[in-house]
Amino acid sequence: MRIDFLTLFPNMLSGFVNESMLARAQKAGIIEIGIHNIRDWAADKHHTTDDRPFGGGPGMVMKPEPVFAAMEQLQTPDCVRIYMCPDGERLSPKMASELSKKRHLILLSGHYEGIDQRIRDRIIDMEVSIGDYVLTNGTLPAAVLADCVARYVPGVLGEENSLTTDSFNDSMLSFPQYTRPPIFRDMAVPEVLLSGNHAQIARWRRERQMEKTKKLRQDILESKDRQ
Amino acid sequence: MRIDFLTLFPNMLSGFVNESMLARAQKAGIIEIGIHNIRDWAADKHHTTDDRPFGGGPGMVMKPEPVFAAMEQLQTPDCVRIYMCPDGERLSPKMASELSKKRHLILLSGHYEGIDQRIRDRIIDMEVSIGDYVLTNGTLPAAVLADCVARYVPGVLGEENSLTTDSFNDSMLSFPQYTRPPIFRDMAVPEVLLSGNHAQIARWRRERQMEKTKKLRQDILESKDRQ
Repeated sequence: MRIDFLTLFPNMLSGFVNESMLARAQKAGIIEIGIHNIRDWAADKHHTTDDRPFGGGPGMVMKPEPVFAAMEQLQTPDCVRIYMCPDGERLSPKMASELSKKRHLILLSGHYEGIDQRIRDRIIDMEVSIGDYVLTNGTLPAAVLADCVARYVPGVLGEENSLTTDSFNDSMLSFPQYTRPPIFRDMAVPEVLLSGNHAQIARWRRERQMEKTKKLRQDILESKDRQ
Repeated sequence: MRIDFLTLFPNMLSGFVNESMLARAQKAGIIEIGIHNIRDWAADKHHTTDDRPFGGGPGMVMKPEPVFAAMEQLQTPDCVRIYMCPDGERLSPKMASELSKKRHLILLSGHYEGIDQRIRDRIIDMEVSIGDYVLTNGTLPAAVLADCVARYVPGVLGEENSLTTDSFNDSMLSFPQYTRPPIFRDMAVPEVLLSGNHAQIARWRRERQMEKTKKLRQDILESKDRQ
């Protein structure tokens, strides 16, 4: 799989793609990553990428020309061109899993003040939001999407980082985890976890999951009931 | 305001804090940022920060000792200690605005496979999720939270990046934006935006917002009706 980032803040991504799981996936040849500065496609001598909005109002709007030029150079016949924005479709495990099967993703990050609508109308296949809040620009959301998608690409996660116990994969929040030492300061690990009784442990964990999900996220249980 | 990041992947953050708005806010002395490697507080010679979970199962769980030691060194009397996790309270503009009034935030990022529950029980004031999906670790979510909160800190956003036209601030998705050129390839900017008639422009924008919100996010309108 190849992932291209198209952003005005390429340095925001350099640490991210060179550390952690994505670095390993690149070294192993599983994922190829490109980081591109939209400014490099701005043809005028000041490399202008934004301008005032027609109709007035605060904020700057990203100009169409550099983004069209960049996209037309980077795109491939079977790529998915994604624009990160707060009014896009919400990122979900299902979406991430589907995108992980694609050969090529291009992630366009704009100013959150906006990009020219003609970009969205013409050279974007999908708009994605990571949540109902506003950030200074779409670069961090693009990194979040890439991290989430990469986890589903075969070979990216080591055995020790299984997908199977994830929150949400079974529509419940996760259970409390404990590791050594069994007593830390005045706090002991629940005895059942030290018992070696696997059936009891599984039941205890399930009960804690249910308890926590009911308390914090009744909506998850309700949407599960509806399915 | 001071923000301390506590993570196993400090390099994931270096690009983020040195570019864009956070870099400017630091230079202006408005926000002070610290990035800390949890591993630096691991006392054994291998600097171990995680271990197998009690009760079995895949994944590694972050050990309590280094995190307690780090937190006890970094915390201040009026700080808010936040753990980034998928089962936390959902990040929202309201939460970000409230956190922006605090003097000191400490953002703890764990493996998403889990951290020892005793950390969450004892030295965490608040658990925050950026959305219902799973990432490889909490470092990107911590960056997302910091970016979102910083926008509300007075003086961080320049005049041209006003908060007032944000998506969500008025419970509606944003309207389409256009900038020069008025005709790009075969695509023209909607005439009303070139008219100079401010009342008409405002009406057109409001209509587009309503249209888009109805089509994509009926839930926002419903929750507004309930308020």
